[in-house]
Amino acid sequence: MFKIGVIGSGKGSNFVALADAVNRGQLDIEISVVISDVENAFILDRAKERGIESLYIPPGKFKTKLEPEVEQAYVNVLKKHNVDLVVLAGFMRIIKNTFLREYPKRIINIHPSLLPSFKGLEAWKQALEYGVKVAGCTVHFVDEGVDCGPIIIQREVMVKPDDTPERLHERIQVQEHIAYPEAVCLISNNAIIVEDRVVRVKE
Amino acid sequence: MFKIGVIGSGKGSNFVALADAVNRGQLDIEISVVISDVENAFILDRAKERGIESLYIPPGKFKTKLEPEVEQAYVNVLKKHNVDLVVLAGFMRIIKNTFLREYPKRIINIHPSLLPSFKGLEAWKQALEYGVKVAGCTVHFVDEGVDCGPIIIQREVMVKPDDTPERLHERIQVQEHIAYPEAVCLISNNAIIVEDRVVRVKE
Repeated sequence: MFKIGVIGSGKGSNFVALADAVNRGQLDIEISVVISDVENAFILDRAKERGIESLYIPPGKFKTKLEPEVEQAYVNVLKKHNVDLVVLAGFMRIIKNTFLREYPKRIINIHPSLLPSFKGLEAWKQALEYGVKVAGCTVHFVDEGVDCGPIIIQREVMVKPDDTPERLHERIQVQEHIAYPEAVCLISNNAIIVEDRVVRVKE
Repeated sequence: MFKIGVIGSGKGSNFVALADAVNRGQLDIEISVVISDVENAFILDRAKERGIESLYIPPGKFKTKLEPEVEQAYVNVLKKHNVDLVVLAGFMRIIKNTFLREYPKRIINIHPSLLPSFKGLEAWKQALEYGVKVAGCTVHFVDEGVDCGPIIIQREVMVKPDDTPERLHERIQVQEHIAYPEAVCLISNNAIIVEDRVVRVKE
């Protein structure tokens, strides 16, 4: 069975989308463990409710990344669970070398914009302020950069004339909850190849 | 009658899309004049075939822009024709101050990407090399920057697994030929407002 570990800092709606896809039999994988850097993150409750091992690991002194020793602690848990893929779901820190070395092209993230547009925080708000008419979400492999690894799936979302950041974000999340299980499905079925930075689905 | 002047350097497929929309009665405007910086540009032949005044104005010594005197010469022709809107259609030079002062928020351009991604040349190729899954085109107002004025319309184009730059470019152009007449229609009907950099269609 293909095993994933999920790491998140917030409410975990993408974790729920993945868990629901598994429960419905649409996604033939096991979610082995959920880790959070936020002690009372709702994602941990949601994992517990579903009988999935959940764990808070304190992030250490930095605000936007984990210290190397802390990354190692995260990696140790993931390795104990033999996860094949690390799935970031609203994890608000940058992944650094300890992680990347252990899971090369085995860490994925979902970002609420059509990358490379609007990297960073509150991408839906950036998109509205820029005035784009087509927004969306991107599932990508995580590499040394921020929001710039090879793209697995993108789904577009039309901006409406009366959109607020909240409304646009909500519609983007609907697409995220379709895209993320789809991407995990492709990877768990060994159905993609990465050439340079271009991800192709095998014939 | 709302009058436009078209400026282009190449084959003029977007000019043809506009002229065809006018001829079909879908777009109630007059294309008053077509100007090119390239003496034998196909866009000039295509204008002549349609009985539209066409004019080559030598670009001067620069490669990526027009000299101020040359910009003035372009502006003089456009003013003589009383154009309400300047439409760039494959014009391979950057518009500078003389032009922008005379036609503030009255110059539009079409770019073969979902801006702000992939500004500059051969955007479809940049998109393929980056590995995006959703590409597209953008109609925007021209301001002091390159490919960064307020966005009027965007249309998305899915990248296919076997895409070549040529194939993707072709499908993007199909969408350009829909988007550009649509944008000119909105402007000629005075149907949009620009707030900061966000373009809204009036109720």
